[in-house]
Order: sequence, then C-alpha cells, then structure tokens
Amino acid sequence: MIKVILLGSGNVATHLFQAFSKATEVEVVQVFSRTLSEDFPKSIQTSDFTKISDADMYIICVSDDAIASVSNQLEFENRLVVHTSGSTDFNLLDKKNRRGVFYPLQTFSKNKSVSFTEIPICLESEHVSDYLLLEKVAQSISNSVYKIDGNQRKALHVSAVFVCNFTNHLYQIGNEICNQNNIPFSILQPLIEETASKIKTLSPKEAQTGPALRKDSKTIAKHIDFLSDENQVEIYKLLTKSIQNVEKL
Amino acid sequence: MIKVILLGSGNVATHLFQAFSKATEVEVVQVFSRTLSEDFPKSIQTSDFTKISDADMYIICVSDDAIASVSNQLEFENRLVVHTSGSTDFNLLDKKNRRGVFYPLQTFSKNKSVSFTEIPICLESEHVSDYLLLEKVAQSISNSVYKIDGNQRKALHVSAVFVCNFTNHLYQIGNEICNQNNIPFSILQPLIEETASKIKTLSPKEAQTGPALRKDSKTIAKHIDFLSDENQVEIYKLLTKSIQNVEKL
Repeated sequence: MIKVILLGSGNVATHLFQAFSKATEVEVVQVFSRTLSEDFPKSIQTSDFTKISDADMYIICVSDDAIASVSNQLEFENRLVVHTSGSTDFNLLDKKNRRGVFYPLQTFSKNKSVSFTEIPICLESEHVSDYLLLEKVAQSISNSVYKIDGNQRKALHVSAVFVCNFTNHLYQIGNEICNQNNIPFSILQPLIEETASKIKTLSPKEAQTGPALRKDSKTIAKHIDFLSDENQVEIYKLLTKSIQNVEKL
Repeated sequence: MIKVILLGSGNVATHLFQAFSKATEVEVVQVFSRTLSEDFPKSIQTSDFTKISDADMYIICVSDDAIASVSNQLEFENRLVVHTSGSTDFNLLDKKNRRGVFYPLQTFSKNKSVSFTEIPICLESEHVSDYLLLEKVAQSISNSVYKIDGNQRKALHVSAVFVCNFTNHLYQIGNEICNQNNIPFSILQPLIEETASKIKTLSPKEAQTGPALRKDSKTIAKHIDFLSDENQVEIYKLLTKSIQNVEKL
C-alpha cells in the first residue's frame, strides 16, 4: 500500500481524499490542516508540523501563495513532495525534499462531487526515478494521466481559464439575461451541453456558428441594441470581433 | 397525420427533417429549396413556388434576411406559416397567412447529428387557435416545448450567443494555446464538460472558480505575461474585470 499525506483542507484536498478513499493501492494516512475540518476523519488530522507522519508521498493542496511556506516548514528531508498547482513551478517547493507536481485539471467546487476517473492528472517530477511512483498514485484514481512539463502546465492553466472560468462567466451573463426576461435559465442547458460535447467530434473552428461567424451585421446590431448592460455590450463586441478575425486566417 | 412542409435546405431544415422522420404524428410532405439537395428525398423536393402542396403547417428555415421574401412569394393565403429564427419578429412574415414562430434553441452543424428530444422548442403564434397545432408538431419531436413571446425569444437568442457561440470561441482559444505548446486539446475535454454540467446543480455564480474570482493578481499577471496574442490578452483582461465586477454586486 502506498502511503500518501495531504497537506491542505480546501476543495482539491477534499476531492482528492474522496478519490483516494476508493483506490485500492493508495491510502491517505494523514491530513495536515491549520484547523480541524469536517471533511476528513478526525483521527487522521493534524495541525502540527512536528507530528507529520512518514509517507511515500506528500501532496500539498494549498493556495499558490502558501505552497512555499508550507514546504519550508516540513521537518523532514529527501522525501517526495508535490504540489497541485497549475501555475506554479515545482522549484518553488523547498529543495530539501524531492519535488514534483500532481496537477488535476478540473474545476472543483465544495458542493459538487466529481468522478476522478476521467480527470486528467498532469505529472512532473524533479528526479526521473520518482516519476513511476507519481504515476502509480495518479493511475490509482484516474484513467487519464499525462507527463506535462512546467511550460506546458502553464499553457494548460491559461487554457483552462478560458474554457472553464471565462466560459462559466458567459453562462452567468446568459443567466442574468434570462432572469431579466422571466425565462428559466434551464432552457439554455441543452444548448450549453451540446456546445461542450460538439467539440469531441468537431474542432472548435468547425463547430463555430452564429451571427459573428456569418457576418450577420443586422442581427449583431439588434443584439447590441437589446443589451442594456455596458459591460455585456463590451464583451459582445470584443468576442464578435475576435471570431471574425479568426475566420480571416 | 399532420402535414408539414419545410422551406429551406440548410442545417435547420436538414435536422428538422431527420427529427420529423422519426415522429409518428407528423409527416414532412414536401421540401422547398432553390436547388436540389442530397439531404432530402428527391421525390418530395420542389424549387417552384407554384408547386407547393397543401399542408397544415409551413416551416420557413432560411436565413433571417430571406424570411420576408420567401413568405411573400407563397401563393396561398390563410394557412399557418412559421419561421425558425430566434431574432426575427413573426410579423416579418407576410400577413396574408396566419403567422407564428417555431424556434429550436440549439446549435446545428451539418456534420453533427443532434437528438431533438432534449432540444427546447420555443413557440409563438399570432392567433391563439393555432397554438395547439404548433405545440403538437413541436411535441412530436421534443420533450421540451415552451411558449415564448417575441421579446423573450430575442433575450434567449442573445443569451445563446453568449453561452454557445462565444463559449465555443473560448474553446478555440484554448485549442490554439494547446497547439502552440504541443498539448492535445482533448486533455481539456473533461474540464469543458464538467463546466457545462456543473450548472445543472449550481448556479453559474456559485460555480465560478479561478484566479479572477480569487483576485489572485499574481496568477493573473503570469497568465497575461504568458499570452503572446494581443487579442487573447484583451479578452483575458476584459473577462477577468467582468468576473470581478459581478462579485462586487
């Protein structure tokens, strides 16, 4: 059994803990967090750096700003310590330990469970010899494990902001417009899901539809006229221009 | 059996034809199109306005600009004629016929089949007495039929641009960034699908995650620094600002 310790008690730690609970070859033997959390068994929690146990791998799941500080406070050396951040170099971790990255590419919210099996886990290790262990731990919870270097991980993290965070914000704008016109937002759900699923078989360029692509200036003008929120108008104009520029290439 | 005639041979007409083919109470008896299309049986096609048959309902599925012209050229009167446009008033149709709207809220691409059962169809009729027939035809292919007035339909159409066309464009940007860094775009697919599916149980506001929401200015600066395309930088900045403004509300 591979022993893993999670450091952190936020969304990523919680979802990883749930996923490892179902794994047969990996056991989370301890969770370190500043304050007692209801998301983990009391018996395995500690908030004391001096009481962190022995393990095969330590996964730091804290905010980017806290990664260096947590890794500095670890009182052991030469063990495998990884972080879960998409936008942080592994060498931000204290070099007294063997370092790596275990980055699950997904959006985690506290009250929404996810199936880890399909979540891509992007791995990087400072020492080649640690990669196999990292891979074994990742494969215990996911069917989709990738070796991704630091620069690629940064690219993925930026891409994820576009396809997830910004996309969700567009959903929110759709939701606001529906609310203002007494339309249930759920009417848009099938369209939202088809848009996401379409790009499994078509490239986004092939899948593009709508007035911007068609250069349908009458409809574009009607839409801009319909929108009362200046911020929404600005987004509408910029994304319309951007779609039309892509098509010129 | 309710007899329907489709006018048009584009994506909407093709997908509607396929859906009605499986319906038991509705039959497409004719398809009018300027040129012979391989997407419909030859035997039921015509390109001659004088040869359009009798039917219970005529569905005009042409581009918004051509709706008025097609409806003006119809040589009959007082029959039920509807269009499928999200952004067009029903009174753009020639008033010699009874008018209405049959708007399927979905993104249609030629080479991607869709299941109509889940597609919301938004209906409007000029005369109350026509609504039941419209509804029966819509329910023959979809489980999700809504009475939506002209203003609501406009709102839905604008919303659809945000949640579908603009979202797909963000996917395209993610795809470009992946290509530039030798990462398979398919790594992002589970994230894209989870983002779309999350809002079935959380509101988009609750589902929002990412550096903009966290006001994580270090990560935001890293991302902007990483992007080499000025257009992508502009979109990144505007959507980040917009997410942060929403959170102030």
